Amino acid sequence: MDEVPGSLGTSASLALRLGQTIFSCASLFFMCLDVNFYGYTAFCFLVTIMGLMIPWSVTMGLVDAYSVFVKFPTRQPGVMIIIIVGDWVLSFLTLGAACSTASVAQLLIEARSPLCPGKICSRYSASAAMAFLSWFLSFASSLFNFWILPKL
Amino acid sequence: MDEVPGSLGTSASLALRLGQTIFSCASLFFMCLDVNFYGYTAFCFLVTIMGLMIPWSVTMGLVDAYSVFVKFPTRQPGVMIIIIVGDWVLSFLTLGAACSTASVAQLLIEARSPLCPGKICSRYSASAAMAFLSWFLSFASSLFNFWILPKL
Repeated sequence: MDEVPGSLGTSASLALRLGQTIFSCASLFFMCLDVNFYGYTAFCFLVTIMGLMIPWSVTMGLVDAYSVFVKFPTRQPGVMIIIIVGDWVLSFLTLGAACSTASVAQLLIEARSPLCPGKICSRYSASAAMAFLSWFLSFASSLFNFWILPKL
Repeated sequence: MDEVPGSLGTSASLALRLGQTIFSCASLFFMCLDVNFYGYTAFCFLVTIMGLMIPWSVTMGLVDAYSVFVKFPTRQPGVMIIIIVGDWVLSFLTLGAACSTASVAQLLIEARSPLCPGKICSRYSASAAMAFLSWFLSFASSLFNFWILPKL
């Protein structure tokens, strides 16, 4: 079987998973730096999704690290489908959360809301930007895995 | 070549494209029913994306109708890649616009904004729902086309 860089078990995939973990943690960090995010549905959604994204990325990163450094895995179609579907669902949820957060933060900044003093709304925007980057990497992962699926 | 239902040139694909066109038009209709949408970035974004989505869906629907009723097309990998990439980009933009619109409409309803009298905000929510449906169909189209790509 030819190796597609970025598919499960390669070092490119490990790099993608590391990036996802880092950007998801950064997004969660910017959002939770002050604890008044729970007033907005969109921000709560982002926190929930990042709370799902981080363990998923860490788990997949561990699988990749194992197969890079110890033993290359046998790719079973059933397992690959679960991984691809998980990646896709999380990637779409992340994109949705990032867009929601970005638009709400934008609305709050434009409205000069009293709920948005100082640089808090910039932090929300930064959180949305990190979520976008996390989405992009997650999407790339799912794409590479989906590409090898018909050949299995 | 085996026929994947939903890929370019099949009747299932024609049905998907028809659905995309209908839902995109409905979304645009609900959003533009009153013309104060341009006060919000998220709503302008939705209108822009729907303005791209409708001609794309109509064009693809015409191609499908031609190949269903007249002559099955020769699928060239280059053309398929353009169609898949176009579908994906539009599908992601649609999802982003739908999420943004939904979260901003939600925020306006919760804040009991004076800019949101009567049932206008429910219309914005309906517009977001239609955009979600349009995204779902567009995503299905791109998935079916992507599935046959490695076999070409």
